Amino acid sequence: MVDDSFIDDWRHSRKERLESFTCDKLLPLLLSKDRAALSSAITLIENNSPEFRKEASKLVNKLMPYSGGAWRLGITGVPGVGKSTFIEAFGKVLLSKGHRIAVLAIDPSSSIGGGSILGDKTRMNWLSLQENVFIRPTPTGDMLGGVARHTRESILLCEAAGYDVIIIETVGVGQSETMVHSMVDFFLLLMLAGAGDELQGIKRGIMEMADAILITKADGENSQKAKQAKIAYQNALHLFAHQEGDWLPKVQTCSSLEEEKIEEVYDLVIRYFDLMKSNGMHEFQRKEQDISFFNENISFLIQQGFFGEKAWKDELLNYQEKVKQGLISPFEAADELYANFKGKV
Amino acid sequence: MVDDSFIDDWRHSRKERLESFTCDKLLPLLLSKDRAALSSAITLIENNSPEFRKEASKLVNKLMPYSGGAWRLGITGVPGVGKSTFIEAFGKVLLSKGHRIAVLAIDPSSSIGGGSILGDKTRMNWLSLQENVFIRPTPTGDMLGGVARHTRESILLCEAAGYDVIIIETVGVGQSETMVHSMVDFFLLLMLAGAGDELQGIKRGIMEMADAILITKADGENSQKAKQAKIAYQNALHLFAHQEGDWLPKVQTCSSLEEEKIEEVYDLVIRYFDLMKSNGMHEFQRKEQDISFFNENISFLIQQGFFGEKAWKDELLNYQEKVKQGLISPFEAADELYANFKGKV
Repeated sequence: MVDDSFIDDWRHSRKERLESFTCDKLLPLLLSKDRAALSSAITLIENNSPEFRKEASKLVNKLMPYSGGAWRLGITGVPGVGKSTFIEAFGKVLLSKGHRIAVLAIDPSSSIGGGSILGDKTRMNWLSLQENVFIRPTPTGDMLGGVARHTRESILLCEAAGYDVIIIETVGVGQSETMVHSMVDFFLLLMLAGAGDELQGIKRGIMEMADAILITKADGENSQKAKQAKIAYQNALHLFAHQEGDWLPKVQTCSSLEEEKIEEVYDLVIRYFDLMKSNGMHEFQRKEQDISFFNENISFLIQQGFFGEKAWKDELLNYQEKVKQGLISPFEAADELYANFKGKV
Repeated sequence: MVDDSFIDDWRHSRKERLESFTCDKLLPLLLSKDRAALSSAITLIENNSPEFRKEASKLVNKLMPYSGGAWRLGITGVPGVGKSTFIEAFGKVLLSKGHRIAVLAIDPSSSIGGGSILGDKTRMNWLSLQENVFIRPTPTGDMLGGVARHTRESILLCEAAGYDVIIIETVGVGQSETMVHSMVDFFLLLMLAGAGDELQGIKRGIMEMADAILITKADGENSQKAKQAKIAYQNALHLFAHQEGDWLPKVQTCSSLEEEKIEEVYDLVIRYFDLMKSNGMHEFQRKEQDISFFNENISFLIQQGFFGEKAWKDELLNYQEKVKQGLISPFEAADELYANFKGKV
């Protein structure tokens, strides 16, 4: 059991710590590739309260000129597909080529208990100990909009801190993929061979987003199945792959466990960026990413302008209480509150 | 190939069709359990343009007194776990007990091609042909907030149209589960036995939300594995299950294919509602659902108040163009636009 005074102390010191994270202090440290400063800067941007938000915005805005140089890679796949194991093996290859790697893991943490991914601490054991690697989970909390903004800002921070490969890892098959796709250059979908019928349960939308599909765990008695799956996915991609700037989505197999064909994934990424940079698509994609970022920012500011002000927050709580007591329908409550709000912000 | 005049015609007739969906016309039809009217009403609420939104709000608000009577069940699980097959088998049991069933499937459709779940047409073949069954996919589009509101309103519409079991089906392990959990009474997590290590890849947050875990495909040579998985999950739930109002989350196995132990799921749901209604938790949960609904509504109205007005929409496009041309950072653009917006809405 943790006693209350301890929590108070912790909260207090946490706030004090945050207050010490100023733009002026963090910016030069970030640019000198200081890992602790990067960590602090991400903590700062993850805080949504207006007082810290201002400093965070200032920081991100100032470091924008130093960002943009990295490969932004999105990696997704259902739970159990082996994302972490792949990132370990892939990270090893990246390090051997002289890259500096940041892994931002979007972590759909518990909305009830606030818990994090089970067994998180044991993931990417080897990689997390390497000097040129920065690993950070992004808690999703309750607002997907918040995650998008945090992750996008974290990308910029990592780039400014000299990481030239940013890996955004996301779990599941759902909304978060669309979000991650909108912030990366290259989107890699990991798939299992022989886990149920091929293509069953795979969402067309996710496959359409993929720049490459990688069939994992292609080792031992699974090798044959992986080869068959490769053919099946290649055929499927023919049917409904979305083609962006002459790049045809590729399908490959690999074994993270035996570190086989991981180098081939690296080659694929190289070929991708070569093509996209030569045909202007890379620049185009980055502009699209900027627009998504702008859209998220303006949405955030609008919500913040409302929910961030104490008077409106109190009003909101008032109406929530009325709804709870059944005095008003959730519909009418929203209409009334919005009518009050309109013209006064 | 579809020629443009055809598309124009189709768009025109679609708008005309929507215009014919008025509250006054739909409300009595809905209350008389007219399935076509229910379908039209959902089409109406799915449309986000302000002209139709007004009519939709009016409709939902008017039918609120007729809603609330159903079991609201959420069903989730990774792709391939057999959600549709289970819902078919479970639906058969529900029908045999005299229930009327609405299935709202949250469909993470493509954000690029606009496509829908692959193989959608072949899902729930038998169930979709039954008289007392209404099945409707909810496209997620780009905004999760939109989905939440649409789905919540669809629940109310279905209840007013006399469906007494509402099943919200959702895919993947991520944000949409949290959303669905906030709008249902009973949250069922389907799991596969022996698909990778037990518990690996399962998010603690999802397990914490589950009122029951159902291990599917417990048939043939899978039976033994399913039994082992049941024990593993029972132990896991002991560790971190969230206990709501005396209900201890249960773990069961079933075979949808062989229609085995499906009746036991029905019994479980009965026991759940008996307990929750007797101890007041059901009422409490419904109030929590109302508050979430209110929060979503107010967020929507605020966003709508901005992006729904032509002048601001034009300004938004302006800034997007500037960001695209690299004339301004996505950050500064949002700040400037918000500063203009502030005080003028």
